[in-house]
Amino acid sequence: MKKVTVVGIGPGNPEGMTFAAKSALEQADIHIGYTKYIELVSDLFPQKPVYSTPMRGEVDRCLEALQLASENQHVAVISSGDAGVYGMASLIYQLSDPFEDVEIEVIAGVSAAQSGAALLGAPLSHDFAVISLSDLLTSWEVIEKRIACAAEGDFCICLYNPMSKKRVDHLRKACETMMQYKSPNTLCAIASNIGRDGQSIQLLTLHELSEAKVDMFTTVFIGNQYTEEIRGKMITPRGYDLD
Amino acid sequence: MKKVTVVGIGPGNPEGMTFAAKSALEQADIHIGYTKYIELVSDLFPQKPVYSTPMRGEVDRCLEALQLASENQHVAVISSGDAGVYGMASLIYQLSDPFEDVEIEVIAGVSAAQSGAALLGAPLSHDFAVISLSDLLTSWEVIEKRIACAAEGDFCICLYNPMSKKRVDHLRKACETMMQYKSPNTLCAIASNIGRDGQSIQLLTLHELSEAKVDMFTTVFIGNQYTEEIRGKMITPRGYDLD
Repeated sequence: MKKVTVVGIGPGNPEGMTFAAKSALEQADIHIGYTKYIELVSDLFPQKPVYSTPMRGEVDRCLEALQLASENQHVAVISSGDAGVYGMASLIYQLSDPFEDVEIEVIAGVSAAQSGAALLGAPLSHDFAVISLSDLLTSWEVIEKRIACAAEGDFCICLYNPMSKKRVDHLRKACETMMQYKSPNTLCAIASNIGRDGQSIQLLTLHELSEAKVDMFTTVFIGNQYTEEIRGKMITPRGYDLD
Repeated sequence: MKKVTVVGIGPGNPEGMTFAAKSALEQADIHIGYTKYIELVSDLFPQKPVYSTPMRGEVDRCLEALQLASENQHVAVISSGDAGVYGMASLIYQLSDPFEDVEIEVIAGVSAAQSGAALLGAPLSHDFAVISLSDLLTSWEVIEKRIACAAEGDFCICLYNPMSKKRVDHLRKACETMMQYKSPNTLCAIASNIGRDGQSIQLLTLHELSEAKVDMFTTVFIGNQYTEEIRGKMITPRGYDLD
């Protein structure tokens, strides 16, 4: 079967995976993905051949997947979270031109925005924006413009890739931009290691967030003007009249 | 057990549900939800007691769930898609004050933005905004402001509730606002009945979308300036250098 299935496995724990994702991984001849993501599913499929590559190897990894599929294999390309949210789905399509006879399928998964939101209560219950602070593939000017627009629209905001060794001050700069439109007292939260060992949440204000230390296993949530703390969770009302 | 678990069941087909969602529904003593969502899972749990209410009954439904839980039951409140994205999670927390001893848990699911995106290829592979066009709980002024901000930031945009009997021109008005910032040739798509009978997708330009007929079972996607059609799908590049 000449097929690439791009599979979003969710936060990383087996319970967070959809039935469609698990059966796609079962049916595939080989699993391809970033080493850490392969490890997340290796316990479920100990016998499955794998081809894992370090981070930053995305293009080679996707080309390898398409090449193997063209040699009559069913290849599962593994993305954590959702395959379509900063995942490999778009790259597989972009590289697929020389592989006309290879079928491509995408299996959606629960992204970090959703799994983190569930941990935090309901921070994204109204209109929201998802923005990555990684400037590896996007200029900081574009990222900053989007942060400003999302803040001006009073969107709830979920930030992916808030920090890395090379990006120690991106979150602070993003918070300062948001504070031009949102109150420094806006309720925010940090979700770490979602669905994995060391999972934790922390609620704080936007001002406090601007000085917070986060790492690459962290997803950050910024509320809208109505977001409130209830039972130690971060809750954005939908607007029902409760009087 | 005095517990309310707010469960996102995904697009509606059993395969789109997570393992965590299914086991939560299995463990619950009773399922509560909008009649149409209860029907989506009734085949999986034919013996499970249900309490279903028509649309617009959200507040009463959530109060009933908390009341039953306080009477020592484990209640599953069912949301389609993700329980935290225009779902019941926030309302359960908001109403929970008189029910101190009731535990609340939220189980994330694949939202229509993700399941629709997978059908369409990868339209949300870069920064995106999710906006509901329903003005039942939000003023049209706020909705229009968010549409303008998201378009100005060149976000990919996913529109929920694009139309209803009472909202026949919201999508047209939204498209006209977006065309103040985005090209009328911006690639867009309509996903209908995602994961259900009659599932379909349609690619079109933003100008064509402004004149399109959609219904309440439709989710609408608007690309950013780089979104392109590949293999009849809607693909938003992440920005990898492919030369």
